[in-house]
Amino acid sequence: MRCCSAQKYLYSLQAALLAKVNGMTEASHDVVIVGAGFGGLELVRGLAGAPVRITMIDKRNHHLFQPLLYQVATTALATSEVAWPVRHLLRRRKDVTTLLANVAGVDRAGKRVLLDDGSAVAYDTLVLATGARHAYFGHDEWEPFAPGLKTLEDATTIRRKILLAFEQAERETDPARRQALLTIAIIGGGPTGVELAGTIAELAHDTLRGEFRNIDTRQTRVVLIEAGERILANFAQKLSAYARSALERLGVTIELGRAVTLCDADGVVFGGTRLPARTILWAAGVASSPAAEWLGAAADRAGRALVEPDLTIAGSPEVFVIGDAALVLRPDGRPVPGVAPAAKQQGRHVAATIKARLAGGIAARPFHYKHAGDLATIGKRAAAIDFGWLKLTGWPAWWLWGIAHIYFLIGFRNRLAVSLSWLWIYVTGQRSSRLITQGDDDKT
Amino acid sequence: MRCCSAQKYLYSLQAALLAKVNGMTEASHDVVIVGAGFGGLELVRGLAGAPVRITMIDKRNHHLFQPLLYQVATTALATSEVAWPVRHLLRRRKDVTTLLANVAGVDRAGKRVLLDDGSAVAYDTLVLATGARHAYFGHDEWEPFAPGLKTLEDATTIRRKILLAFEQAERETDPARRQALLTIAIIGGGPTGVELAGTIAELAHDTLRGEFRNIDTRQTRVVLIEAGERILANFAQKLSAYARSALERLGVTIELGRAVTLCDADGVVFGGTRLPARTILWAAGVASSPAAEWLGAAADRAGRALVEPDLTIAGSPEVFVIGDAALVLRPDGRPVPGVAPAAKQQGRHVAATIKARLAGGIAARPFHYKHAGDLATIGKRAAAIDFGWLKLTGWPAWWLWGIAHIYFLIGFRNRLAVSLSWLWIYVTGQRSSRLITQGDDDKT
Repeated sequence: MRCCSAQKYLYSLQAALLAKVNGMTEASHDVVIVGAGFGGLELVRGLAGAPVRITMIDKRNHHLFQPLLYQVATTALATSEVAWPVRHLLRRRKDVTTLLANVAGVDRAGKRVLLDDGSAVAYDTLVLATGARHAYFGHDEWEPFAPGLKTLEDATTIRRKILLAFEQAERETDPARRQALLTIAIIGGGPTGVELAGTIAELAHDTLRGEFRNIDTRQTRVVLIEAGERILANFAQKLSAYARSALERLGVTIELGRAVTLCDADGVVFGGTRLPARTILWAAGVASSPAAEWLGAAADRAGRALVEPDLTIAGSPEVFVIGDAALVLRPDGRPVPGVAPAAKQQGRHVAATIKARLAGGIAARPFHYKHAGDLATIGKRAAAIDFGWLKLTGWPAWWLWGIAHIYFLIGFRNRLAVSLSWLWIYVTGQRSSRLITQGDDDKT
Repeated sequence: MRCCSAQKYLYSLQAALLAKVNGMTEASHDVVIVGAGFGGLELVRGLAGAPVRITMIDKRNHHLFQPLLYQVATTALATSEVAWPVRHLLRRRKDVTTLLANVAGVDRAGKRVLLDDGSAVAYDTLVLATGARHAYFGHDEWEPFAPGLKTLEDATTIRRKILLAFEQAERETDPARRQALLTIAIIGGGPTGVELAGTIAELAHDTLRGEFRNIDTRQTRVVLIEAGERILANFAQKLSAYARSALERLGVTIELGRAVTLCDADGVVFGGTRLPARTILWAAGVASSPAAEWLGAAADRAGRALVEPDLTIAGSPEVFVIGDAALVLRPDGRPVPGVAPAAKQQGRHVAATIKARLAGGIAARPFHYKHAGDLATIGKRAAAIDFGWLKLTGWPAWWLWGIAHIYFLIGFRNRLAVSLSWLWIYVTGQRSSRLITQGDDDKT
């Protein structure tokens, strides 16, 4: 079957080539992309002008600028400042049809993407760029108590949780229960955990100060729990140490070297100690979306599809998996990290591969990852940047981080809006999006 | 009991007066306000400097600028542009404690507000400013099919409903079902219905144009259904006629003189005719919050508490009901309308009454409503304004409306943000908040 499938693919490429040679304007090669994240959008961009019809399928109507999502969770930015409708981003690309739909599976033999309403979308080339969710290392029962941060809904859930804890503390008369309400535990000392800890400490200690009458929000305990020996383990040792002391200056307690063994409604247990905390945030594990499952392809423990060096699935040269949904190994055996630049590089690579194939060159083109560097911010005045050749800390790093992120935001208006929001927060210490909505039991 | 309660109140006033005379700095008169809408906030403002302790209770953490809520529902503004945390608005007022809490009832004899967690808040003076919800004239079963617009959640629900209808239409192959998805029925021809119809028509016909490949959003039917003989019935006849022709120019169909007899998942029935429509919005009836019920006080059919001329409840001079929760009659017998200026006037009036009482004057001060005028916008280039002495239409009215609303927005930053959002929409025709979030069945 595999051989047969590969042969069909060659025929389709030949047909496309023939169409081009004969000057036919109607594209006859269907590229279906699932996922409008960084990888999927970069792929669309790379295919501009190619003789293909593109269908972009996503189960959400928006592209999410995930690197800034923690700022929505911590009330600094509004949801519409970090997300934009996919079909608006792609409106000028008349070769692209955008569909809001849930994928149920892939029929590799029939070359069809199956949707959950029973319909199907046929493809000649398929690219799955479906990203990742957080994982609980086999403890999915922790999720209700320790939400992670991957979607806009995650961010508003966390925002609501944090703000409600302060509101409940204002009304709580029992000192122990009040302290548990004013304790926020963050599990995982990677960039997301560090960024959450820093901004939550600032929210509690600065932004909310003076707005409550029965509690002093400066008493809020922010505890960052990391099982490993240091936070920002991927960064240089020196930068880890800097981040640690910068967080401690903001009043964050850092607990290293002890793994979490339980999360429940009352708190978190790590290294045998129970920390009473009514707010727990999960920034530890990441698991892939079901892309590998849909394909019936081999996957690693985290669910990432094992791909060939050219990012295709073994035996199906017409099927690519990119971004966080794929496990791509570097020459030294380490995996390509799950960051936006990696997904974008892969999107560009697949676009070039498809165009090369349509132009008649069919050789497999191996993907090579170029690591641009690692960045993490600590509150609103410090950051750690590790470019390898350049290591920066303090406010120069923070400004570089801010400028880089605004530059990468898609669309001029949001750049302006985010810049204004940040400037406002920076100057006044106030935040724009401190709304508790959604999930109210009482809607009357 | 009533007499006794009134007497206790006099004692408390005397005590407060005594405290003031003796130069005691500690306020001993507790004012409890339920509801941080226009009336409640204006009351707090009016009590600045008075020798009282204020407790502001609201079941939401934000004040909502309701006049602009339809712009959130129609994707023009973000939620954080029309709502602000109550405790942030009141942060400098050290005499005010803000509580996020659900009220379960009022113990008039014991002078306590009962909260749903079993606790209670004692008051010397109580002001209920709890606003209104939409009502379905005894047909609450219509609510899931025809959501109304009163809260931020209502607005995001309507936004999701409208945007999802276009997304589903893009995937729908059956022409009749597709037309039903592209039909939006709005029930009620008052200012909210007119504003929704106008902006939705612009959204469909302008903003979304060119972003879909299988549908033409210009084919969208926006139908405004009004049981009475004209839309904007409270306005002068000439302005109604103007609004009608302005809406029709935007492509809105107006159905007059036929009442709705059924709403279901497939559409709406009015005057015996069924209109297949997958999106129905309710802008017709308004019912009060349960303030009168909590008090065990007399109410009209819409649930509004019947108040004395000084806005107190008969027999309880220490209990006031203001804003949409109260039925206040004008000298000619017509009720004071449920608009922001009326609630604000009542808030100011109650503040003055409380201060007069604390200063030793106890006579009942009757409230007199001053009607400022009626405004409604029709899309982004027209409006109808009826000040009685001045009637305006067209773009001068639109600009006056825009400037007035930005002026009344609380807080400088949001004024700036809303101005920029509107300017952006005005110049480009694009909108900022076209996000479908919340209520996803599939959160993985």
